[in-house]
Amino acid sequence: MKQTTIRVVFALASLLFPALHTSAATTPARPVNLIIILADDMGYGDLGCYGHPTIRTPNLDRMAAEGMRFTDFYACAVVCTPSRAGLLTGRYPIRTGMTDDKRRVLFPNSAGGLPTEEITIAAALKTKGYATACIGKWHLGHLPKYMPTSHGFDYYYGLPYSNDMDMRVDAPKGAVRNPDAKTEWFNVPLMQGSEIIERPADQHTLTKRYTEHAISFIHEHKDKPFFVYLAHTFPHVPLFASEKFAHRSARGLYGDVVEEIDWSAGQVMEALQKEGLAQNTLVFFTSDNGPWLIQELSGGSAGMLRDGKGSTWEGGMRVPGVAWWPGTIKPGQTAHDLACNMDLFATALALAGIPVPADRPIDGVSLLPVLLGTGPAERNVFFYYRDTKLVAARKGPFKIHYVTQTGYGSAKPEVHDPPLLFNLEQDPAERFDIGKDHPDVIADIAKEVEKFKTNLVPGKDQLVEVEKPN
Amino acid sequence: MKQTTIRVVFALASLLFPALHTSAATTPARPVNLIIILADDMGYGDLGCYGHPTIRTPNLDRMAAEGMRFTDFYACAVVCTPSRAGLLTGRYPIRTGMTDDKRRVLFPNSAGGLPTEEITIAAALKTKGYATACIGKWHLGHLPKYMPTSHGFDYYYGLPYSNDMDMRVDAPKGAVRNPDAKTEWFNVPLMQGSEIIERPADQHTLTKRYTEHAISFIHEHKDKPFFVYLAHTFPHVPLFASEKFAHRSARGLYGDVVEEIDWSAGQVMEALQKEGLAQNTLVFFTSDNGPWLIQELSGGSAGMLRDGKGSTWEGGMRVPGVAWWPGTIKPGQTAHDLACNMDLFATALALAGIPVPADRPIDGVSLLPVLLGTGPAERNVFFYYRDTKLVAARKGPFKIHYVTQTGYGSAKPEVHDPPLLFNLEQDPAERFDIGKDHPDVIADIAKEVEKFKTNLVPGKDQLVEVEKPN
Repeated sequence: MKQTTIRVVFALASLLFPALHTSAATTPARPVNLIIILADDMGYGDLGCYGHPTIRTPNLDRMAAEGMRFTDFYACAVVCTPSRAGLLTGRYPIRTGMTDDKRRVLFPNSAGGLPTEEITIAAALKTKGYATACIGKWHLGHLPKYMPTSHGFDYYYGLPYSNDMDMRVDAPKGAVRNPDAKTEWFNVPLMQGSEIIERPADQHTLTKRYTEHAISFIHEHKDKPFFVYLAHTFPHVPLFASEKFAHRSARGLYGDVVEEIDWSAGQVMEALQKEGLAQNTLVFFTSDNGPWLIQELSGGSAGMLRDGKGSTWEGGMRVPGVAWWPGTIKPGQTAHDLACNMDLFATALALAGIPVPADRPIDGVSLLPVLLGTGPAERNVFFYYRDTKLVAARKGPFKIHYVTQTGYGSAKPEVHDPPLLFNLEQDPAERFDIGKDHPDVIADIAKEVEKFKTNLVPGKDQLVEVEKPN
Repeated sequence: MKQTTIRVVFALASLLFPALHTSAATTPARPVNLIIILADDMGYGDLGCYGHPTIRTPNLDRMAAEGMRFTDFYACAVVCTPSRAGLLTGRYPIRTGMTDDKRRVLFPNSAGGLPTEEITIAAALKTKGYATACIGKWHLGHLPKYMPTSHGFDYYYGLPYSNDMDMRVDAPKGAVRNPDAKTEWFNVPLMQGSEIIERPADQHTLTKRYTEHAISFIHEHKDKPFFVYLAHTFPHVPLFASEKFAHRSARGLYGDVVEEIDWSAGQVMEALQKEGLAQNTLVFFTSDNGPWLIQELSGGSAGMLRDGKGSTWEGGMRVPGVAWWPGTIKPGQTAHDLACNMDLFATALALAGIPVPADRPIDGVSLLPVLLGTGPAERNVFFYYRDTKLVAARKGPFKIHYVTQTGYGSAKPEVHDPPLLFNLEQDPAERFDIGKDHPDVIADIAKEVEKFKTNLVPGKDQLVEVEKPN
C-alpha cells in the first residue's frame, strides 16, 4: 500500500483503538456492516480534506483523519446513471447497457433500467442475511421492475431520478442553477418502497430526511448485519438546504448543501458510535462524478484537476474517496492506490465472505488489502468511458487520451492520433502531453485497451427506450 | 475566529496536552521561541494537507493536524525579495523600497538591500535577549551592511540570493528547469556569517545542511529564548535533492524537493520535542509567493487558485500557512481568517511582549488572538502589489482588480475600469466577475485603497542600483 501517515495521530489513536486489523484476515471473522455514502456531482476539490479553502466539512475531514483518504479514486462514468450502475454491480456500464451517447442518463420518460439479471451489492449481501436499504437518489430505472426493492434492497426511500427532472414548463430560465429556485418548479416524486409519498418533493429537507431514515434503519437493524446505500440528491442542481444550513456557508448555497451532507455523514458516524457498531462497520464516502462546471457557482470544483462532470479529463471522473472503519483502518492514512467505485462491489462481497459472481465479467476488485494495510490495490488499469465510448485509459501513473472533449457545452470532440499521454503522478492537472517521448508507454496502454475490448460484450442499451404515451 | 474542528483528534490530543492556552493571555508569561520556516516558490496546492494528490508531506500534514492550517494566508508580494522584506519588517515592501517594476528582485550585481533603519523580527527580538539565526536564503542584499548579521541575526548560514543566479554563461538552454541540472552550472556562494565558505554551493545537500544547522542552533540555545528563520532555497528552480530524497517522489524531482523540505520540518518538530521545547515554541510554515508556473513540471501548483508567482491573481500570493504550538494552539483547526506574512512580524513581537515600533507604519497585525483562539484576526483588508503597483485589494470576501496580468510571460497588463470584482469565499478560483451587480462593494474597497495610498510614503527604490564594475 502506498500511503503517508500522520504519525502522532496514529500514536494517539492506537492508545484507544486496539489494532483489530492485525487479527483480520482478508475476510473478517464476523459480518461487517457496510454504509456507502454517495454525493451527487461533488467535485474532487469540494471538501476541506481535499483542499477547498471555504467549504467547511469537519465531519468528513474527521472521517479522513480517523480513516483513509484516497487520492486516486474514480467514478466509473462521467454522469449519474452509468456511474451508479457500475458502483452497485462492479461492472463497467457498457456491459450492463446503462449508458448511451445521446441521452447519457435515464429520464422520467425512460422505459429502461438496470436489468434484472444484474447482481447489485444489495442482492449479493442479502444472500448472507444482510438487511439492506437504499436511501436517496436511485436513477437506475423508475419502473417497478427496476426499482431498488427489485434489486435486493429491503427498503427504499428517496427520489427515483435527478432532482432537476420533471421541471415545470413555466419554470424561469436558468431555474436549475438559480440559488433562489423554488422546490415547486421541479415536480420530482419522493418515493417510499414503490409508492410516491410526496410530489413535488420538498427538496429543502431531503438531506435531513435521508439522514433520519438512514439512522433509523441503523438503529432498527443493529443486531444483524446491514448495508445502507445513502445516495444523496445533492449537490446536484437545483440546490436546496434545510433551514439549519441555508445561508450559513461562506461558499454560498453550494457550500450550504455540501456542509449539510457533511453534517449527515457526522450523524451517521455518531449513530454507529452510539450503538457500538463503529468498529464493525465500513463507511465509504464518494461522489458519482465530477463537478458540473457549467452550473457556475451552483456547481462544484475539481480542485487542480482539469474539467468536470461529463468529461474524461481527470476532473470529470476522479472524485473524493474516504473510508472509515475505526479499529481496522489505521487513522490518518492517505492511499495513492488506483481505485474506483466498481471496486466497492468487490469490497462489499469480500467483507461478507461472498465470492464474486463467476458467470459474468466483474471489473471491480476488492479494496480490503488496501483498507487493512495488507497489500496494494490489485487494480493497475482503469478505462475512461465517455458514455459508450472508451476514450482514455490509465495504467499506473500514465493516461492516454484517444479523444478529448469538454464535459458539457458546444465544443466538439478532438481525436488524437497518436493519443495524448500524461503522467498523472507528475502532472495531475494534465498540462503536459509527453506522448512523443514515450511511444512505448502509449503502445503498452493500447494493448490493455485492445485486450479489454476483445472480451467485451456490450449490454443492450437501456437508456434509449422511452415509454409510449398513453 | 472562523475555523473548523476535527473533533476526535481534539479529544484524543486533549488527553495528552493540557490546555495551556486557557491560562495564556495575549502575551504569554515566559518568552516563547519562534521558528519561521519559509519555502521558496511553493504553491498553495503543493502539500498533502492542501490537497496535492501526489506529493507526500506527512510531517507538514501532522503539523496541521496538531495545529492550525490557514486557508487565506498571503505573501505580501508576488516575488522573493519584496515578500521576504515584508515578512521580516511587517511593512509593505513599497514602504521599504524593496520592490521595483523592472528588476523585481535583487540580483548578484545589485548595490542595494534592506535599509539599515528597518527593524526586522530578529532585531526586535534581540532587545528581549533572543538568540537569533537566519539559515537559508536571504535575498535582502548581499553587501555587508545588508546581510543578516547586520539585521539582528546572531548567526547566518545560507545563500545570499536565489539559487538560479550566477548561472554560468555556458550552462545549457533551459538549465534552471532541467531536472538533470548540475549544481556547477550555478556559481552561487554558500555563506556563513559574512564569509563565503563554498562556491559554487553544492545544492544537492542544501536542505539537509540547513536543517542540521537549524537543529544545532536549537540544541545550543535551548536554555534561552531563540528565533530561527529557516528560509529554504527550494522548491525555487533549479531543483536539487539529497541522495536520500532524489528519485523518490511520484511527483518527480519537484516532489523530491518538497518532500525533503517536509522531512526537514519533521526534524525541527522532533528536535523541539526531544528538548522539551515544543510547548514553548511557535513554529510557522509558509511560502514566499506562489508557484513559478512557467517552469512547467519544475514549478509547483496553486491548486484551484488562478495563476502563480509574479501575478496578483490568488495563485500568485495565497500560500500555505501552518502554525504549530502544542498545548497552546488547539489541534486540527482550520483558520479562514485573512492573514499574511507581514503579520508574522507583529505576532513575533507580541509573543515576546514587545510593542510594535511607533515611529513608522507597521502593516502586520498580531495573529496571537487567532492562534490562541481568543478572537478573530484584526485584519480585514489586504492590498495586492505587483511590484510597486497596487493593482488589487481584498476586503472581507471581496477582491477588486484594477489591473490583471499573468505572472510571467509576454501577456500585457489589462486595465479594468470599472475594476473586476470577485467574491473569493464563493469563487476562490476567480472565475466570475460580479462587479456590475455590486458597484457599492467596489466603491467601498476603493475607499480603503485611497485611504491607504493617502498615507503612503514610498521608500527609496533599493533594487534599481547596481554595483559599478571595478
